[in-house]
Formats: sequence, structure tokens, C-alpha cells
Amino acid sequence: MRDILPNDTTYMRLETALASLSDDRDMERFLTDLCTPAELRALRERWQVAQILNESHASYRDIHAQTGVSTTTIGRVARFLKDEPHQGYRLVLSRLEKPTD
Amino acid sequence: MRDILPNDTTYMRLETALASLSDDRDMERFLTDLCTPAELRALRERWQVAQILNESHASYRDIHAQTGVSTTTIGRVARFLKDEPHQGYRLVLSRLEKPTD
Repeated sequence: MRDILPNDTTYMRLETALASLSDDRDMERFLTDLCTPAELRALRERWQVAQILNESHASYRDIHAQTGVSTTTIGRVARFLKDEPHQGYRLVLSRLEKPTD
Repeated sequence: MRDILPNDTTYMRLETALASLSDDRDMERFLTDLCTPAELRALRERWQVAQILNESHASYRDIHAQTGVSTTTIGRVARFLKDEPHQGYRLVLSRLEKPTD
């Protein structure tokens, strides 16, 4: 081994890195480095679906027709939105005002 | 179609949602809803590798031995860290102080 960091080095957690960015454009730069294009597309889709599910009673079929997201994915997002204990989607949805048209 | 949101509805961008969270614990809750466990593991690995590459001149082989991350992934992180124009990793690495031991 050369001068690799020792095993007990404290790394910055991913959460800490992301939470340090408060500017949309900075966040976009970090995500572009961190995620593959396919991953980023998947994350964007889930977040869009979470917002649709939060605001409407549309069927999974209708949401699929509008967004192209699979009904399997829509079901998974719905489960995390409604049933899982961490309520992370809900945290953001309840905190931020939706832009008015 | 039932009461699905109209196509011109403005959704909150993923970047905006993430940038709204400044607390590590809140970020963890959101990421847990947003990402699959495998995705989250991959993102954490890349971020850890970015920090190792930023702080040492260890070979990809040594970094692989320490972290278990594939040399292909390490090479990809190194490319984004050093060569790509958006410099998102660098943005966070340069901004936050690393905890001192």
C-alpha cells in the first residue's frame, strides 16, 4: 500500500455533502458527478411521481400514461409516500410551497 | 383520465427538493424514500472514493482493496473528479472542511 488513507479516516457522509448544498445549480453539478444519467433519470421520475400522487387521485394507469413511468415504479413510490416509516418524500412535500401558476 | 394533474403543472425539481434539506437526518429520510438500497450503496461508494482520490495518491488497486469498489467505478469517479467540466464533487470537497482526527 502506498499513501492510501488509513482505515479509520473519517469520511464525510453523503447526507452531509448533499445537505451542505442549498443552491439548485450547485446541487445539479454534484448530482451530475455522483449519479449515472440512468440513475438521475430514475430519481427524477420517482420524485415527479411522488408529487403527482401527493396532489391527485389519478390511477397508476393514468400516471403511467402521462409520465411513461412503469406502474411498478409508481406503486413503489406510492408505498414509500404512504406506508413507510421514514416519510422522507412527505417531509419535503409538506415543507415547500408548490409554485403557483 | 380522472383528476390527474394537467400536463403544464409545474413540478418541483429534484435539485430544489434536495437543496431544501439542510439537516443530515432529514436528507437521510428523503434519500431512503427516493433511492433503492442498491442505488444508495452505489452513491455512497462513489462519494467515498471521490474523497479518497482527493486526499491521496493511492492506486486504484489499493483503493479497491480498501473499499471493495471496482476499479472501473474508481476510474469513473476519478474522471468526474478531475476531467469533467461540472466539478460537482470538487465543489463540495473544496467547501467543507474535513473533520480533523
